[in-house]
Amino acid sequence: MTIQLYDLAGADPELRFSPYCWRIKLAFAHKQLAYETIPWHFTETEKLAFCGHTKVPVIVDGDRTIGDSWAIAGYLEERYPDRPSLFGGVAGQAHARFVNAWADSILQPGLARLVVLDILQVLRPEDQAYFRHSRERAFGTKLEDVVRGREQKVEEFRKLLAPVRMVLRGQPWLGGEAPDYADYAVLGSFMWPHCASRFKLLDADDPVAEWRARGLALFDGLGEKARTV
Amino acid sequence: MTIQLYDLAGADPELRFSPYCWRIKLAFAHKQLAYETIPWHFTETEKLAFCGHTKVPVIVDGDRTIGDSWAIAGYLEERYPDRPSLFGGVAGQAHARFVNAWADSILQPGLARLVVLDILQVLRPEDQAYFRHSRERAFGTKLEDVVRGREQKVEEFRKLLAPVRMVLRGQPWLGGEAPDYADYAVLGSFMWPHCASRFKLLDADDPVAEWRARGLALFDGLGEKARTV
Repeated sequence: MTIQLYDLAGADPELRFSPYCWRIKLAFAHKQLAYETIPWHFTETEKLAFCGHTKVPVIVDGDRTIGDSWAIAGYLEERYPDRPSLFGGVAGQAHARFVNAWADSILQPGLARLVVLDILQVLRPEDQAYFRHSRERAFGTKLEDVVRGREQKVEEFRKLLAPVRMVLRGQPWLGGEAPDYADYAVLGSFMWPHCASRFKLLDADDPVAEWRARGLALFDGLGEKARTV
Repeated sequence: MTIQLYDLAGADPELRFSPYCWRIKLAFAHKQLAYETIPWHFTETEKLAFCGHTKVPVIVDGDRTIGDSWAIAGYLEERYPDRPSLFGGVAGQAHARFVNAWADSILQPGLARLVVLDILQVLRPEDQAYFRHSRERAFGTKLEDVVRGREQKVEEFRKLLAPVRMVLRGQPWLGGEAPDYADYAVLGSFMWPHCASRFKLLDADDPVAEWRARGLALFDGLGEKARTV
């Protein structure tokens, strides 16, 4: 049976911009697993009531329901061991957790400081209220203040990417010679502004931009074909 | 034949504080390889003239001479495949490169902003001039200015460690269930202030402090036994 993915959607239901859902879509493609997405909006809590989760991604695979992107990736690796590996073994998975944690704790907040207001603007009105309230509480300030001066602050953001840039001097992908979940964790975060913002994040000659372009082209252009604003 | 390691030393030749040399000492211990260290000071360029390197670590293993900690770790893994693995396979090594790059590009500069002046003070007078000149050129300012206000700036440093903290919520070591080179890359950086500074870097209840303590205790207390100021 086709795996179902509850996938965050904007006011345009085809606009799918969740960094964490993108990690899983890339993981499905890597493992050559068929899936269908079910659009989900921030305030549709009742739609996930069946499984006890309050956020996406959530996948339903037969009688199994799993939430949280890292847990889903681990589940897919264990459940489908005959498909291409997401992690390349036990140590590969342990070390990928650091890349994933860096994307969650450094990259994602760094992106938010630049584009969080753009994200707000792609949401349905009823989701905007939730999003503004929850994010302003987390930032401790208005979203307009968070992104103010972003044309200057983007330089600081680019410095955060130093480890990615350094890795790419030694190998073409974070996964080594070929992409794997380490790439999808970081690429998922970049899909967030890619889909929902027009702000220019990277210099054209940044090796991270070149890597991102290769990432968007993977799997017959899965990222390239995504709906954008 | 015992492997030789050129190991950065202070005015006290037993004070060995190089983060990059520590990575390799921990790697030797992990691989259960016998080694001896040759103390080396910043301005002893003639002592490395035989191999064309200008910085340590440099190892001499029979007729092979290798510099740069990442290259040395890769060499040890390839040359001694029957010994415990530093990386746990090809993907493990590819992903560990990110941890290593993060330690180089984020952690190490973050530490320097707090303790670089302490490092200066453990050097021989003739090395101090070199160290001050090269580091002040890199920072673009006096070392005294770099560390000024460090009691306040340490909070910013602790935020940089978010990915480590997040990983440790899911597994005891960066390497997973047991330590490996991902841990040694980060632990090596912490050995720098551990040996050469008395500045308090971490809150006692920080999970990173608990991990560091376990790291210092590895290999019969290799890190614990190190000479400190």
